[in-house]
Amino acid sequence: MYELGVVYRNIKRADREAADGLARFGSATVHEAMGRIGLMKPYMRPIYAGAQVSGTAVTVLLQPGDNWMMHVAAEQIQPGDVVVAACTSDSTDGFFGDLLATSFQARGARGLVIDGGCRDVRTLTEMGFPVWSRAISSRGTVKSTLGSVNIQVVCAGMSVNPGDVVVADDDGVVIVPAALARKTLDAAAAREANEGEKRAKLASGVLGLDMYKMREPLEKAGLKYID
Amino acid sequence: MYELGVVYRNIKRADREAADGLARFGSATVHEAMGRIGLMKPYMRPIYAGAQVSGTAVTVLLQPGDNWMMHVAAEQIQPGDVVVAACTSDSTDGFFGDLLATSFQARGARGLVIDGGCRDVRTLTEMGFPVWSRAISSRGTVKSTLGSVNIQVVCAGMSVNPGDVVVADDDGVVIVPAALARKTLDAAAAREANEGEKRAKLASGVLGLDMYKMREPLEKAGLKYID
Amino acid sequence: MYELGVVYRNIKRADREAADGLARFGSATVHEAMGRIGLMKPYMRPIYAGAQVSGTAVTVLLQPGDNWMMHVAAEQIQPGDVVVAACTSDSTDGFFGDLLATSFQARGARGLVIDGGCRDVRTLTEMGFPVWSRAISSRGTVKSTLGSVNIQVVCAGMSVNPGDVVVADDDGVVIVPAALARKTLDAAAAREANEGEKRAKLASGVLGLDMYKMREPLEKAGLKYID
Amino acid sequence: MYELGVVYRNIKRADREAADGLARFGSATVHEAMGRIGLMKPYMRPIYAGAQVSGTAVTVLLQPGDNWMMHVAAEQIQPGDVVVAACTSDSTDGFFGDLLATSFQARGARGLVIDGGCRDVRTLTEMGFPVWSRAISSRGTVKSTLGSVNIQVVCAGMSVNPGDVVVADDDGVVIVPAALARKTLDAAAAREANEGEKRAKLASGVLGLDMYKMREPLEKAGLKYID
Amino acid sequence: MYELGVVYRNIKRADREAADGLARFGSATVHEAMGRIGLMKPYMRPIYAGAQVSGTAVTVLLQPGDNWMMHVAAEQIQPGDVVVAACTSDSTDGFFGDLLATSFQARGARGLVIDGGCRDVRTLTEMGFPVWSRAISSRGTVKSTLGSVNIQVVCAGMSVNPGDVVVADDDGVVIVPAALARKTLDAAAAREANEGEKRAKLASGVLGLDMYKMREPLEKAGLKYID
Amino acid sequence: MYELGVVYRNIKRADREAADGLARFGSATVHEAMGRIGLMKPYMRPIYAGAQVSGTAVTVLLQPGDNWMMHVAAEQIQPGDVVVAACTSDSTDGFFGDLLATSFQARGARGLVIDGGCRDVRTLTEMGFPVWSRAISSRGTVKSTLGSVNIQVVCAGMSVNPGDVVVADDDGVVIVPAALARKTLDAAAAREANEGEKRAKLASGVLGLDMYKMREPLEKAGLKYID
Repeated sequence: MYELGVVYRNIKRADREAADGLARFGSATVHEAMGRIGLMKPYMRPIYAGAQVSGTAVTVLLQPGDNWMMHVAAEQIQPGDVVVAACTSDSTDGFFGDLLATSFQARGARGLVIDGGCRDVRTLTEMGFPVWSRAISSRGTVKSTLGSVNIQVVCAGMSVNPGDVVVADDDGVVIVPAALARKTLDAAAAREANEGEKRAKLASGVLGLDMYKMREPLEKAGLKYID
Repeated sequence: MYELGVVYRNIKRADREAADGLARFGSATVHEAMGRIGLMKPYMRPIYAGAQVSGTAVTVLLQPGDNWMMHVAAEQIQPGDVVVAACTSDSTDGFFGDLLATSFQARGARGLVIDGGCRDVRTLTEMGFPVWSRAISSRGTVKSTLGSVNIQVVCAGMSVNPGDVVVADDDGVVIVPAALARKTLDAAAAREANEGEKRAKLASGVLGLDMYKMREPLEKAGLKYID
Repeated sequence: MYELGVVYRNIKRADREAADGLARFGSATVHEAMGRIGLMKPYMRPIYAGAQVSGTAVTVLLQPGDNWMMHVAAEQIQPGDVVVAACTSDSTDGFFGDLLATSFQARGARGLVIDGGCRDVRTLTEMGFPVWSRAISSRGTVKSTLGSVNIQVVCAGMSVNPGDVVVADDDGVVIVPAALARKTLDAAAAREANEGEKRAKLASGVLGLDMYKMREPLEKAGLKYID
Repeated sequence: MYELGVVYRNIKRADREAADGLARFGSATVHEAMGRIGLMKPYMRPIYAGAQVSGTAVTVLLQPGDNWMMHVAAEQIQPGDVVVAACTSDSTDGFFGDLLATSFQARGARGLVIDGGCRDVRTLTEMGFPVWSRAISSRGTVKSTLGSVNIQVVCAGMSVNPGDVVVADDDGVVIVPAALARKTLDAAAAREANEGEKRAKLASGVLGLDMYKMREPLEKAGLKYID
Repeated sequence: MYELGVVYRNIKRADREAADGLARFGSATVHEAMGRIGLMKPYMRPIYAGAQVSGTAVTVLLQPGDNWMMHVAAEQIQPGDVVVAACTSDSTDGFFGDLLATSFQARGARGLVIDGGCRDVRTLTEMGFPVWSRAISSRGTVKSTLGSVNIQVVCAGMSVNPGDVVVADDDGVVIVPAALARKTLDAAAAREANEGEKRAKLASGVLGLDMYKMREPLEKAGLKYID
Repeated sequence: MYELGVVYRNIKRADREAADGLARFGSATVHEAMGRIGLMKPYMRPIYAGAQVSGTAVTVLLQPGDNWMMHVAAEQIQPGDVVVAACTSDSTDGFFGDLLATSFQARGARGLVIDGGCRDVRTLTEMGFPVWSRAISSRGTVKSTLGSVNIQVVCAGMSVNPGDVVVADDDGVVIVPAALARKTLDAAAAREANEGEKRAKLASGVLGLDMYKMREPLEKAGLKYID
């Protein structure tokens, strides 16, 4: 958060298999697998429904109303990355549109997470380039003040280091630190393994009260049933 | 609003026919039929477009970041109910996901209205289990502090008693007190009976100014036309 | 903004060809063509995706919770108009629904931009009558206090004169003053002429850094690359 | 919440001694004494610091941009009341100013709690008439649509019945149902009796960890200390 | 709103006597005298209580995160002016601090109204230089992109022309068009002449219901009293 | 951000002299001295005007509606610290009141920065214990779920490491990384050394346009003066 005007070129990306594998679990399961931590604020919404991606973070720190650093970031993208853009102060301006998306996609980016605005959403939808943003706005930006690329940033309330894993879907965006990627993948898989059985039980009418053995602790906590 | 740690098991549900029949009129017509009252705040949005339901309210009072009472509520659901969940302080956490939805649906619930967050929206959409919420968030919750089930709650600015009728669609969520359900159904039907004719007139180019005889009151109020 | 209780009947609409022609460029390109000016605040969102219109503004100044002036405005609509409704104080009430939409559509309106709420969104979607609004709300309104029609208004942060061109799509709503319509059309066309070539280059892997010749100014500004 | 156009003249006010006595404990202690329930949303702020009142609620349901019912409410005020005003939809308009305050004060009101706007705050401060509101706004209102007086309302997320006790200070506004007033007064007094001793201990350097015996449960919950 | 990069040097200021005289009535009375129009959004708050000013507007259009134009505006200030600063997109950055205030004050400005952030509020308070702003923020700004000075702007939802009268106090900020300044002064004076008598009556216990003769219209509107 | 249930006891605090010395420059100057970086979001406001502190951060990660970790944090406080509390999801609950303040003050804390609510503001003001918070709320909290103490947190959009320097005043809250404390102190001092002279010039009527030599770059950027 504290260096302006720098671009780190050699970042350590999370284990590729873990970074790729986390997508299929989705943000809610990964968030649970992390111990209920790592979620960006829920104002971050996808510009279209149904996208579900994971990848390694290339981070960008933007200045308000200025998207110069997005172009600098493009060069740092490698296949399998997701760009995560923060801004030094809250802004809804349209820092990103179809031309940058074309460039990012050509470089191998799987999507963009931006704590700011995005435009050309119809074209982005047609291109299948998913964006999670705080706003949609036609407003274009200037190119005059330096930010940074691949430093630690805070995006929508979450700290993100370059190389961390980004998991994003219709439920939101979760960040998994690179060092925890493999472990989180395993925890998510374990977690999901149990879900099928639970779902079947609940679908058959078994109550969570019984399945999770909640009746006793509820009674102990003092819950009263009144007829 | 004032009892914590209680579950009322025998609630008086609104007249079933009225509770079922109100769905087809939609929230806007029902809101007008009530005399322009009963609407939750418009930040309550459906997680997918096109759902239109009505049913009898099972109410839940949650604590922030804690969905324990949702499991307690599941047991109180009867076919034809809609669960209405309030929280003791504003929270966007994901109190509800696909497992709880499976359970609620198995019990006969027609949907959920929650002044909080919801997750697994893609799965909920596939299941056809509609949710109206203030947020979508992957963030899971703990199970440690008691709230209540089937007490009077305030959800998104509206007072809801267990057994009241909930009418929800793309336009929002309206609450009809159980005692007014039948009368509101009749008023909604009467209201809609006139709409077809009005629509035809307006479509033919007749102005509301003339159809509603507004020209005289407008002139009386002092409206000036300037050429 | 300062006259209440008046309706201007003879407004000067922007050049028809320009007013019609701007739609195809979309709000983002038009906003750039204007010199990055003219955009309403990004809380204005379409009630359904995919609509893209332009037309001449008929303006309405509403009072909170009161849609009387919408009926007065209907009479002033001519084919090719887009109605722009402002309110004297912030309100999310549902000032507009399917009956008014039927009337507006019959008069030739192409859509509505309202700094307030809208209802019957499912029917409006079926009718193909696009609305950009700050909220969706079932809440109906009274008809008792005068506002004005076809005066200058401020809608979602943007000043709009009757006859100005409204350009609205999934990215937002831009206002082009009538006097600048033709010039803006030309600028938008010129702008778009270059986009195809740029897009092709970027798609082929050329970086914006090179295409826009940014490397030198970035270096001059002090950007440091760190390996 | 469901009756418009009515004024209840004979409301049952809470026990006077309890209603008067709760002021000195303040909203935070009363809220705890109620079992952490009854608090309005924290956007309700006093127009000046230092006021601390309690009294019996006279309730008002306003229409947006319309303060007609405030005048109707004035007649229902008795000495020792606090007026609680809700609105059928969110509004920041200035429903209340120095003239109404003069009238309310002459009738014996101790203050106003309004889920809307308030104006003439400098004069109100000089008069010593405290107001808790969601906004301060010069914008005046019309007098044309009926609401109600002394029905149950929802004000800033809390259900209020006429006659309930209102406790308001710099920390916010709490509602105590009339039937619980006496019991809450006792609970608040008991609670405060312990506070002096606790404060002295903490001031002497004793930790809450020890005073509240938290070390064991924290360890049980798994807390780890790392040197 | 549509010209960037221009400074109008010869603006027509409102009648000086009217511009100076409106201060003493305050924003609420002036807003009523205008016919309930002209008020900026209520998020505009003074940085300290008790300031009450009026003056002629020098307008500034800023770019987000950029206060270059504030320095350009300083040169255009004449004694008796109030600077009104808008921004091309929402920003809370601290565009204004004690150095600019020193310069503005030296030029004769009576205050600043800014739809953005302000800093050094303690020093500004000591200097007695009042600011109405949407935010307080330490965040400084760059000087790199042109806006304009003395064009029509929209500030906090209100259209402002250079030379218009600004009236600001603890209740908010009202804009009086230059052409209406004298007439508004007279209307405000007339309005206030009646207030003393009204206040005395209300203080003596006369109800607004009787003083304003509301009982009959309320009955006509259908108000029911229930004992 | 990623460890729950841990307390780091041996944190490395910033250079004491720098940590203490930064207070007198205030948040705006320190923010500039850092290169315009490090500021928390401007929704963080002091509960009373006039406090200006700096100190070393003890960090706390809270769970929503749960202040257990505040008691754990108390033990880690050393004289000269400022506690910085973040929460795993947005909450306005009153996590902190006069008892905790008594304890924190007894331990030597200079203040609290909390991305949540605070209560007992009148008593805190009397105690002279400053708090910067996002809300004021009477609502109390439970003690049942673990967070952490002295891990890296994100508070109001800013990343904070234990031991970093916190600088807070009426303008907001800035974080200076421990490693940059000394250098920032020097930069702030250098910056302030120039301010007196600048202020005198501006007070004498010299324009920033001339003092900062902006006329040429403005002309180059295309600024046009129109008479």
